[in-house]
Amino acid sequence: MKLENDRFLRALLREPVDVTPVWMMRQAGRYLPEYRASRARAGDFVTLMKTPEMACEVTLQPIDRYPLDAAILFSDILTIPDAMGLGLHFVAGEGPKFERPVQDRRAVEALGVPDPEQQLGYVLDAVRLIRRELNGRVPLIGFSGSPWTLATYMVEGGSSKDFSRIKGLIYSEPATAHQLLSKLADSVIAYLNAQIAAGAQAVMIFDTWGGALSDAAYREFSLQYMERIVAGLVKEAEGRRVPSIVFTKNGGLWLEDIAACGADAVGIDWTINIGEARRRVGDRVALQGNLDPGVLYGSPERIRAEVAKILADFGHGSGHVFNLGHGITPGVDPENAGVMIRAVHELSVPYHR
Amino acid sequence: MKLENDRFLRALLREPVDVTPVWMMRQAGRYLPEYRASRARAGDFVTLMKTPEMACEVTLQPIDRYPLDAAILFSDILTIPDAMGLGLHFVAGEGPKFERPVQDRRAVEALGVPDPEQQLGYVLDAVRLIRRELNGRVPLIGFSGSPWTLATYMVEGGSSKDFSRIKGLIYSEPATAHQLLSKLADSVIAYLNAQIAAGAQAVMIFDTWGGALSDAAYREFSLQYMERIVAGLVKEAEGRRVPSIVFTKNGGLWLEDIAACGADAVGIDWTINIGEARRRVGDRVALQGNLDPGVLYGSPERIRAEVAKILADFGHGSGHVFNLGHGITPGVDPENAGVMIRAVHELSVPYHR
Repeated sequence: MKLENDRFLRALLREPVDVTPVWMMRQAGRYLPEYRASRARAGDFVTLMKTPEMACEVTLQPIDRYPLDAAILFSDILTIPDAMGLGLHFVAGEGPKFERPVQDRRAVEALGVPDPEQQLGYVLDAVRLIRRELNGRVPLIGFSGSPWTLATYMVEGGSSKDFSRIKGLIYSEPATAHQLLSKLADSVIAYLNAQIAAGAQAVMIFDTWGGALSDAAYREFSLQYMERIVAGLVKEAEGRRVPSIVFTKNGGLWLEDIAACGADAVGIDWTINIGEARRRVGDRVALQGNLDPGVLYGSPERIRAEVAKILADFGHGSGHVFNLGHGITPGVDPENAGVMIRAVHELSVPYHR
Repeated sequence: MKLENDRFLRALLREPVDVTPVWMMRQAGRYLPEYRASRARAGDFVTLMKTPEMACEVTLQPIDRYPLDAAILFSDILTIPDAMGLGLHFVAGEGPKFERPVQDRRAVEALGVPDPEQQLGYVLDAVRLIRRELNGRVPLIGFSGSPWTLATYMVEGGSSKDFSRIKGLIYSEPATAHQLLSKLADSVIAYLNAQIAAGAQAVMIFDTWGGALSDAAYREFSLQYMERIVAGLVKEAEGRRVPSIVFTKNGGLWLEDIAACGADAVGIDWTINIGEARRRVGDRVALQGNLDPGVLYGSPERIRAEVAKILADFGHGSGHVFNLGHGITPGVDPENAGVMIRAVHELSVPYHR
């Protein structure tokens, strides 16, 4: 099936494009009334995510509404720990929780590496269904949480303010922490490769909590495992390169090291100027980002001005996928997201002549 | 009254010291059983903070327990908005709340600049009492939240995950945001100068949420107001320089600009290597930091090793005040805090020969 719009894939590989491609992290989400309706019909988030037909439905909602250049699989970053038997559930107002957190050496040793087709078949079924329903309109992104980010939830038992348990683990039993991270890296490799085999045309690793580490601990406990994953990924499918994107929130200080991890592209949040980021990474990787999602609470004029600034800061040529610096937040007016998306396409034309 | 231990003040001015001075952000806090006892006696946090005798008592608890090199006034960063009439209170598990948040131009226009002696007398009484009780053992640090950080709480009405209201304000009504920040800067100048007049021997500005801004917005909405404050501070008291410290959490990317704001010292969190930070700021400012508070959940051996690493990364000479990169967290074992404090003094001797 021919891909009608491949500028997202081309920009990730720094190949020429007509305009800068754009998508939004968490674009299938609560800010959309049609998503809230699907979510209400599903009853709970886990059912929504684990039912391929429903995951497909919400994945396509933003694609039907906006001229986006990529779709991203609707799923959760915690599917792997759930498949490992930790018992993922969601408590209203508190986010994800695990019934059986992993808190000592014995629990880490007992963990297996999930077989994606056996234990995460619902994700792969969703990927296959979404590809069919997308019918070549735009590419589909698969994704996973990073080993460090998955480990924080697994050890803390849910979200955390100060990461006291996982920090206690890395600063008292580093060998146990490495054993856990190693199993997670193997799991993520198998999981992303299975998503690629099912039809994902690019993959992204979300390291949401790498920025909670010190510079030395980030390299030791997060980055090295993402490097291992990128090295283990299938590089081509359907006769085409499958680009990889690595994103560490609050990782701007470590940009050169992240850019050297082997991925095709690096996601950046809005704390770093994208022009400065481009100077620092040179032509090693493409960049994805980096509008503050908070700008979408502003006026349409200011949204366009902030889009224009990022495009100008990045400058001429390919190698930029426009995105928010983090997920779109539930309170955003969908009209404002549309203003941003259209502005990217309109205002980026001169940079690709 | 003679100051028995002035190495904290000397290090902030990059004057020679015998060992690296150390204190901990939030050192008077919930990790200490004696603090929890005082807090229980007070009944609620606001009473504890607003009663000078009780604020003095908890300020001195860590000084009595550990060989710390500075005391910090026990107070809250939100005293100024409270004095402006917003009605500060605390909801268990949710942090600070304001009864009357500031959410439009009219509310901003109605705000006055508090007179510290009239409206924040309880803070100044606490400063005077603490100085008397400290009796010259170590210097006393006064502090305030930064205008941007105060504004986030005032506009959001409390803590926030995505800062949607304040971001909406700066990205739709920037003039109103600047009016608010300007009033806050004037208020902070008056407040810190009153603390200095009452006996504070150094002052620190906490910009807890500056790191939530884009690089351009940080300069426009946070840093310029801290510059204005530093320029307006009284520089000498009791015949001695009163050093100022500016701390933006997650501000490592902007270090050169922060170091140019006029303050004597810059606080850094643990995401940046302190040796790298020192190279970037040169001899413009002293540095304060930067142990990950999460290290205190580790083993004593690892705590000492991490202290040793930071001391070695900073290297020889004065200009370093050892601290955590953020406040000490409630679950820390007080013994581990002691391990860190003693390690700083013991292991820093060779760097000051």
